[in-house]
Amino acid sequence: MRSIAMEVCYDGTGYNGLQVQDGGTTIQGTIEEALSTITASAVRIRYAGRTDAGVHALGQVVSVQTDHSMSAGEFRAALNGNLPHDIRIMEAREVPLNFHPRYDAKRRWYRYLISTAPERIPFFHNYAHWIRRKLDVDLLERYCGCILGEQDFTSFASLEEGENPRRTLFECTVKVRNDFVVFDLTGNSFLRRMVRTIVGTFLESEKRGDTPNRIAAILRARDRSRGGQTAFAGGLYLMKVFY
Amino acid sequence: MRSIAMEVCYDGTGYNGLQVQDGGTTIQGTIEEALSTITASAVRIRYAGRTDAGVHALGQVVSVQTDHSMSAGEFRAALNGNLPHDIRIMEAREVPLNFHPRYDAKRRWYRYLISTAPERIPFFHNYAHWIRRKLDVDLLERYCGCILGEQDFTSFASLEEGENPRRTLFECTVKVRNDFVVFDLTGNSFLRRMVRTIVGTFLESEKRGDTPNRIAAILRARDRSRGGQTAFAGGLYLMKVFY
Repeated sequence: MRSIAMEVCYDGTGYNGLQVQDGGTTIQGTIEEALSTITASAVRIRYAGRTDAGVHALGQVVSVQTDHSMSAGEFRAALNGNLPHDIRIMEAREVPLNFHPRYDAKRRWYRYLISTAPERIPFFHNYAHWIRRKLDVDLLERYCGCILGEQDFTSFASLEEGENPRRTLFECTVKVRNDFVVFDLTGNSFLRRMVRTIVGTFLESEKRGDTPNRIAAILRARDRSRGGQTAFAGGLYLMKVFY
Repeated sequence: MRSIAMEVCYDGTGYNGLQVQDGGTTIQGTIEEALSTITASAVRIRYAGRTDAGVHALGQVVSVQTDHSMSAGEFRAALNGNLPHDIRIMEAREVPLNFHPRYDAKRRWYRYLISTAPERIPFFHNYAHWIRRKLDVDLLERYCGCILGEQDFTSFASLEEGENPRRTLFECTVKVRNDFVVFDLTGNSFLRRMVRTIVGTFLESEKRGDTPNRIAAILRARDRSRGGQTAFAGGLYLMKVFY
């Protein structure tokens, strides 16, 4: 047996998320189906991070164990020939057999895009959250500073039963790029819906003109009902996983 | 009666071109239907330039004559409320009753996008022509210089019976932007498929390493069979119409 790791770019618009589940086509299911076609055997993949329905990835990492003799490059080419155009293998390489894309990941980088164009742009309908008003980016930047470091993110996530809510956020920045406001978050790992709930909460507080103290208080409360709404899935991109 | 001109942005992916015709949904038909809903009467629009199936626009201009009393701004808002998300009215304003978006246009600016990323990027599937090899942009730039000015563009267009093939090209440039090669063409007006056939011809000549003389010879031949293939529709954008 050998193990091959792949960097995957996908447009999540047409998928019911990454993980195989009942109902709807998933990224995982689509990749596994293509792999099964190529290797003529049932295949399961491992992945670095689950993404919800409509969420995109530029650098998701998946791995597969196989006894097939194709080189990593041949796997990549064969897979791309069998995948739909909205999923692409950007890179493939041989890794140690015990490599696990989720457990071995050191850092994950997510990006969230907000379009602040005066009118909703057709091309970004599924690819950015549209907000008509002008955002106070200085205020948002001060919010970002309140959630850095190792924290209990219960107020900003959809926790699973018994899940450890502590995560470490290394980076949380916001900047303006043309008609976009761009959030970048890097952490050791992320809870379910964490990035979207952080962004959604920031946007609600910014609209009310809350001081950064308000964000710090929501974090300290460890209470999901204190956080804001989860922001639109199409604005979120898993950019890169670091090992 | 009054006349209202509107700047329209659309994602042409799902449409059988701008102009109403048999078969398929068109941009024109969709806008006229929304206008008819709003004004409760049959409406015809005029437009600046026909775009083919799959071609996009950031600044198409259309106009409508109406006896409705809504302000231009109200028209824009009501239309956007009745249009699908892939067509947006970006601007609307009152114009003289005899304004015609096609006949009054002085210049049109088209852009053509080529993705040169090593792998086909899911997000640009319908929005850029993908070419795996590295392009010789200096050579393409020299080709651009060969077709400027007032010319007979028969070799680079799908002419209609008896149509005057002379057009004036004010600007034809090519540049590299990240993983894209970007062509910008500005002219008084354009023949059918002219931009895409120019780009398609340039790409074929560049691949063979033809000198610019070859492009000049194709232009002089006034023979469509001497030009290259029409490039992929999804890479083309009508950027702006100048009056």
